[in-house]
Amino acid sequence: VLELDLPGRSVRFRRADGAGEASEAFDHLLIATGAAPIRPPVPGIDGSGVYAVNTLQGGIDLSQRLDSDKPRRVAIIGGGYIGLEMTEAMLLRGLDVSLVDMLPQVMGTLDPDMAEPVAAALKQAGVELHLEEKLEGFDLSDGKLAAVITDKGRLPVDLAILGLGVRPNTALAKHAGIALGVRESIKVDDRMQTDVEGVWAAGDCVESRHLVSRRPFWVALGSVANKQGRVAGVNIGGGNTVFPGIVGTAVTKFMDTEIARTGLQERELEDLNIDYVTARINSRARSGYYPGASPIAVKLYAERGSGRLVGGQIVGGAGSAKRIDIIATALHAGLTIEDLLNLDLGYAPPYSPVWDPVLIAARQTLKLL
Amino acid sequence: VLELDLPGRSVRFRRADGAGEASEAFDHLLIATGAAPIRPPVPGIDGSGVYAVNTLQGGIDLSQRLDSDKPRRVAIIGGGYIGLEMTEAMLLRGLDVSLVDMLPQVMGTLDPDMAEPVAAALKQAGVELHLEEKLEGFDLSDGKLAAVITDKGRLPVDLAILGLGVRPNTALAKHAGIALGVRESIKVDDRMQTDVEGVWAAGDCVESRHLVSRRPFWVALGSVANKQGRVAGVNIGGGNTVFPGIVGTAVTKFMDTEIARTGLQERELEDLNIDYVTARINSRARSGYYPGASPIAVKLYAERGSGRLVGGQIVGGAGSAKRIDIIATALHAGLTIEDLLNLDLGYAPPYSPVWDPVLIAARQTLKLL
Repeated sequence: VLELDLPGRSVRFRRADGAGEASEAFDHLLIATGAAPIRPPVPGIDGSGVYAVNTLQGGIDLSQRLDSDKPRRVAIIGGGYIGLEMTEAMLLRGLDVSLVDMLPQVMGTLDPDMAEPVAAALKQAGVELHLEEKLEGFDLSDGKLAAVITDKGRLPVDLAILGLGVRPNTALAKHAGIALGVRESIKVDDRMQTDVEGVWAAGDCVESRHLVSRRPFWVALGSVANKQGRVAGVNIGGGNTVFPGIVGTAVTKFMDTEIARTGLQERELEDLNIDYVTARINSRARSGYYPGASPIAVKLYAERGSGRLVGGQIVGGAGSAKRIDIIATALHAGLTIEDLLNLDLGYAPPYSPVWDPVLIAARQTLKLL
Repeated sequence: VLELDLPGRSVRFRRADGAGEASEAFDHLLIATGAAPIRPPVPGIDGSGVYAVNTLQGGIDLSQRLDSDKPRRVAIIGGGYIGLEMTEAMLLRGLDVSLVDMLPQVMGTLDPDMAEPVAAALKQAGVELHLEEKLEGFDLSDGKLAAVITDKGRLPVDLAILGLGVRPNTALAKHAGIALGVRESIKVDDRMQTDVEGVWAAGDCVESRHLVSRRPFWVALGSVANKQGRVAGVNIGGGNTVFPGIVGTAVTKFMDTEIARTGLQERELEDLNIDYVTARINSRARSGYYPGASPIAVKLYAERGSGRLVGGQIVGGAGSAKRIDIIATALHAGLTIEDLLNLDLGYAPPYSPVWDPVLIAARQTLKLL
């Protein structure tokens, strides 16, 4: 057990069995306690067939169970990033997969219309979709998982994998009296210092600033955590640098469908009372005549009046996902839709139509401004 | 034959055989005369086995010749974009390919060190490289191509394809007294109007503004031409919009090697007397543990003092080329290397290491500032 004694500038370690105690003084302290998968307190959640995967060991345990028990039917609880990745992994192992989500759509970080092609790809791959179904528990017989229970029925399965998101591990910081923010993540300034001088925090346990909404935001992603860790390290080491914030970029895939989003989505724009225009276009990730030109859908959001780009979503085949980086970079720079339209992006038939799909979407959005 | 009568606001058409003449009055005139392949005036250049490919018909003619004559040995003259694309196309048809370039490297729009892996890929594919060899002519016997003659020797071939670049078609504009700029391309303002009121120009025949060097620049690329055409069209139609300029982005591929560049390269920075730092890194286009993680090399340039990003080059396997769009977007927005380093780019193992290779390059470049 760990405790922080901030006035005493020290960390106390106490053995859980009470057999020992030690303490370590610090000049600077970095809290990097990460995040942990959400495990809702429903009956059977701790049963042996119910897995959460956010550590290497968790993955190894699951893989060994799949090898030893040869389950046939698996339920994935949650249709977000982890849920989709685990769905793909289970399908590739030949299992029957049911996907349960309480929302009316998969991928809640996409608008409903952009999540539709993802749902279609899931169905196409043979996944049984259970949307608008709330997890109520797990039916265990002799400690062995027999079924997932939802508010709509009973799904007989051999294994269940949780993909219900994570929450920041901040009990330590909270007990020490460090200020918390969004979803109880640790508040830090742009140098990654908490409200206590010399106490720093970085990674999945901290709050970030959303550069588009200009509000505090919490995100748990390795790419963000690494950048924050670098900034904290530079500053603790006597340097001086800042982490400006995030724009909400995330990418994933399901089989051949690439999925990406950044900035604000419709729901967020409405919550923030931002007046917007939006356009969605369908194009190809390569020149149409070039072999293997996958379909790609791009949706953009711009603020009415200013024309400022405020968000984008991309779903499509090979070559789709990383195009979100164009939009993410433009969001960082505060570009308008007209700026975006004029970007000098790479063009060659194997990589893009002569108007990159992102630019086609910008043209359509501009017309609505 | 076409002639412009600008004071008379009309275009005159005259049949080359003198048999007829017509004229058409205009309120607005758009010049979109494009560019034409450079054909150096060397002996044999108009021989029947010497091809230039910049029109659909040119490609059809070449393809038919390949089918009918079944040539075995082909020389590609010029190691730039078209030269590389034609080299790949000829290799895929099973031909023996020799590539001739007067420069000591292929891909002159890359720095020599970034062109090296491209040369290695060409050699690996069996291409005979003839660098620092200047084309002196074509040896024709009975009108049939027998060999390419360079300043270093004689290459027996059945067919030759020119990839020596293009030049703007601006004789018409020049005769009409319209102001020309870089490489005799047509000078236009940011609304795409020439120095004559009501006379507009767009596409491969016009000069652009380079947003990094802030100097006039000439580039012949479909993506740029299309944007300019849109701007000219909007303005001719009574609207009001501008084409801000280009940053010099170009991408291509040779077999599995993806090639991209944007902004200023070493040679240009030195010509412009811009004091710079540069770093080159080697990474992977996906997380290293993810299957199919291709190597990728990223090189960045930043202005010393300001830290402003001024250029970038990328060479690597699948997933490399379109990453140039991150750098191109950052150049448009005038971002610094530190801004670049903090971009919230898409991260998931199938698409990127946790530090995107572009960000790794930014970190290394920042250390040198």
